[in-house]
Amino acid sequence: MSDACELMLYEAARAQLVDEVIRPALERGAVVVCDRYYDSTFAYQASGRGLDDVLVSSANALGAGGVVPLRTLVFDLDPARALARATQGGADRLEAAGVQFQERVRAGYLRLANSEPERVRLVDADATPDEVYGRAVAALADVFPCLSEVAHD
Amino acid sequence: MSDACELMLYEAARAQLVDEVIRPALERGAVVVCDRYYDSTFAYQASGRGLDDVLVSSANALGAGGVVPLRTLVFDLDPARALARATQGGADRLEAAGVQFQERVRAGYLRLANSEPERVRLVDADATPDEVYGRAVAALADVFPCLSEVAHD
Repeated sequence: MSDACELMLYEAARAQLVDEVIRPALERGAVVVCDRYYDSTFAYQASGRGLDDVLVSSANALGAGGVVPLRTLVFDLDPARALARATQGGADRLEAAGVQFQERVRAGYLRLANSEPERVRLVDADATPDEVYGRAVAALADVFPCLSEVAHD
Repeated sequence: MSDACELMLYEAARAQLVDEVIRPALERGAVVVCDRYYDSTFAYQASGRGLDDVLVSSANALGAGGVVPLRTLVFDLDPARALARATQGGADRLEAAGVQFQERVRAGYLRLANSEPERVRLVDADATPDEVYGRAVAALADVFPCLSEVAHD
């Protein structure tokens, strides 16, 4: 599969997800939490695969149809350790691309966090699950003030 | 399937076709003839489905990766008669969308021929196969001068 084809397939899947699930949920007032959205496409397809930044951003705009995440959390960890965690049950197609690919992906996420610091927040994931959870809640506290109570439970 | 998802799937297929078949063929000096390319996507997805023109043109640019057809021939025929011809062996998904959809698609092709008269040529297809073939060859004669001999065979 060519890199451009892979990009467009992610956008096709996202366009369907937005039209069928995300937009209707937002319209009824729900909070939508996604495990990966177009920031991941930027990190994997632009930074990881090496496709042009502007091309990937344009494709992201098409696939998302104007639905922009209020906040993106990047759980940041040394790529070698992250890969070891993620592949305990076997590697998927992207995980099988190896640690150098993951390092380029990480660089893409760091670039996003740097260029949109308000929207894209790094969460240091080199800690226990409870500690990482606390950091995630803290990184959302200004968007969802009710979460500050959860964090102190 | 949402209209935006359908659009992106066509672009994914085209991106793969360009990378795997069309670009390598052009690089070795071949002439590439396609039955449908991105002008059809404009006619079907923008004019037929009603997606925004600019959105479809942007998606087309992404999917084609810069490979622009030198000439597009539109075989023009009354949509009801065209549909009757095309569906003799059963209707596919787009043909099953009916004659009003086909009329919008035709309007999209006419719009393209009007806005890019040099690149997009209408061929009147209300004739016998031999007559239509002669008209197609005539519409390509300036691009491929050798075809003028074929036309006179």
